Amino acid sequence: MTPFERRTRACQQRLRDQKAEAVVLFPSRNLQYTTSVVEEPSERHLFFIVPARGEPVFVVPELYGEQLRAETWVADVRTWADSDDPLTLIKTVVEDSSIDPQNRLLVDDTMGARFTQELRSLFPAATFGLASEVLGPLRRRKDDAELDALRAAATITDEVVASLRELGSDAVGLTETELAAVIEKQLQAAGGTGVSFAPIIGSGPNGADPHHRHGDREIRAGEPVVLDFGTRADGYPSDQTRTLVFDGNPPAAVADVHEIVRNAQAAAVDAVAPGVTASAVDDAARDVIESAGYGEQFIHRTGHGVGLDVHEEPYIVADNDRTLKPGMVFSIEPGVYVPGEFGVRIEDLVVVTEDGCERLNHADRGLGCK
Amino acid sequence: MTPFERRTRACQQRLRDQKAEAVVLFPSRNLQYTTSVVEEPSERHLFFIVPARGEPVFVVPELYGEQLRAETWVADVRTWADSDDPLTLIKTVVEDSSIDPQNRLLVDDTMGARFTQELRSLFPAATFGLASEVLGPLRRRKDDAELDALRAAATITDEVVASLRELGSDAVGLTETELAAVIEKQLQAAGGTGVSFAPIIGSGPNGADPHHRHGDREIRAGEPVVLDFGTRADGYPSDQTRTLVFDGNPPAAVADVHEIVRNAQAAAVDAVAPGVTASAVDDAARDVIESAGYGEQFIHRTGHGVGLDVHEEPYIVADNDRTLKPGMVFSIEPGVYVPGEFGVRIEDLVVVTEDGCERLNHADRGLGCK
Repeated sequence: MTPFERRTRACQQRLRDQKAEAVVLFPSRNLQYTTSVVEEPSERHLFFIVPARGEPVFVVPELYGEQLRAETWVADVRTWADSDDPLTLIKTVVEDSSIDPQNRLLVDDTMGARFTQELRSLFPAATFGLASEVLGPLRRRKDDAELDALRAAATITDEVVASLRELGSDAVGLTETELAAVIEKQLQAAGGTGVSFAPIIGSGPNGADPHHRHGDREIRAGEPVVLDFGTRADGYPSDQTRTLVFDGNPPAAVADVHEIVRNAQAAAVDAVAPGVTASAVDDAARDVIESAGYGEQFIHRTGHGVGLDVHEEPYIVADNDRTLKPGMVFSIEPGVYVPGEFGVRIEDLVVVTEDGCERLNHADRGLGCK
Repeated sequence: MTPFERRTRACQQRLRDQKAEAVVLFPSRNLQYTTSVVEEPSERHLFFIVPARGEPVFVVPELYGEQLRAETWVADVRTWADSDDPLTLIKTVVEDSSIDPQNRLLVDDTMGARFTQELRSLFPAATFGLASEVLGPLRRRKDDAELDALRAAATITDEVVASLRELGSDAVGLTETELAAVIEKQLQAAGGTGVSFAPIIGSGPNGADPHHRHGDREIRAGEPVVLDFGTRADGYPSDQTRTLVFDGNPPAAVADVHEIVRNAQAAAVDAVAPGVTASAVDDAARDVIESAGYGEQFIHRTGHGVGLDVHEEPYIVADNDRTLKPGMVFSIEPGVYVPGEFGVRIEDLVVVTEDGCERLNHADRGLGCK
């Protein structure tokens, strides 16, 4: 049994447990998780209907039929032509199945309103919920195949950050965008597939905007540069941040803030263990930064889950009382932002283990390049 | 007034005409169309609430506040922090506005079920519709700024297809993926921004799968290669297909089919005029191919609208009785697919004019390279 089928069977068990009739997926990470299919959502109906009991069915545009039959574990692939009404086919599939459309149906969390409105019209007596009710608990705890991929992606990122550190004064004078191009090339050369998000290269005052991507500003000596990037390996992303001064000595305030953020990050990692709440991990980082007087300048959550999605549950945020469990993977990324001056952020991914946690990233966390 | 504000004001007029209270957008092409903001959907609430009367409001994560205030025409940008509940802020915005949440609310067509379920819970007395009810009619008819961008993107694509034709026998022996890389580089060099979709390079039998992207197969002499690609200019895409034999002479059947497809494409273009239905354009292409005995092998619609989305309304398909109007832009792309052997497709974009249509693509449509 492939991991994809195994995950789908576990999803069916959860549907039965929760007394839901079926889950309807469309092109999404949930679809990738259960079938391996990586597609962008389009205007065409490409649905994967997983009943609580019996075999799942793909309902797809004719163009996709052969490909899905060849590339997925799913035996029942039904196609519709451009001149057909796909809703008629969906209705037939449901009528032919064990699904009772007077009961509870779950739809993919990212399925667009256009499609969900159609399903509501097609099954007016159904009540609707979200796929994450059954797939969320599965996806939150990574299986071995997923952990292998996440470790591989993290290792590639570690290698690239180490080679950036070796640039030292050679990085001075590069624009942020030029450095981003160097990073993309190195990630690829180290075995990564593309970038898992547009790299953030925040030099000097640009580092104070956590949402800054990269621009034409040239990197200068003596200023910190926030470097936040990742790649993918076997479909799974990395996401890591280091803040480096490529050459020269930064103002004392920068070194102080860097030390505070580094301590906050370490404190949060130390707090991670099964049974601990996500909010307790956020608290651990925030306490260090607040005690140092920078609480108002730590303006985002401490972290986010990482899996097929670069941002997914569990969110490491103040009001999240979700309990951590083995297999959960998330970022720990406190930061301090001084508007108009500089920013510092340090981020690693961790996986919750049976008795604590394991960091997936090991690259040096220091500020300087020497 | 920027084009973005002008479009939003037109949207508000349509909301009033249709007795809807408001439209709620999230990161999507609709948001880009009304505010210029290009963002990917994420797990965070980033909403643009446009009431039928009064000023629209952004509700966005704190990280985005300054950026949206600086870069958009929207004066009222309200932010929520990671520790806040964005739904509380949304409720406040609605309460402070002219919106009656007992009435009809429209949500972005691509807004995920997670967000739409939340809005349904927040406003249980509301009835829900889709943003396309008000934005669709606006987006279908391109304004001058949009047509300029679409023409620019089409011209870049014309230039690249002309230079591919000059490759001639130099293309033989390249893999499809290598040729795709050449195309991406040339599109960039000609002034395009990236690709508007993953290029389709279907050599020989791979051309028979309209959904094929590109792979390791080497291009051979005497076989047709389907080349379907586009780029973006000022945010708007191109989408063009030519079928080329790079070197040598193809079997007679290939040349015959190519001639049939070319005639079908010309017949469909000739059929385009204001007042004509989309289905009549589909018929015009299909009639030529059916008469030649290849009807069963023309397995997709004749075309699709092109605007901010590469696939949008109007769809040029048999059952679409939508009437064409000046300013509509769509593809005309009939094809014939002989499984295991080859495929032929020819595609241009056209814009409906006051008295007929204008092709946006002008590159040579011939099969050979000499």
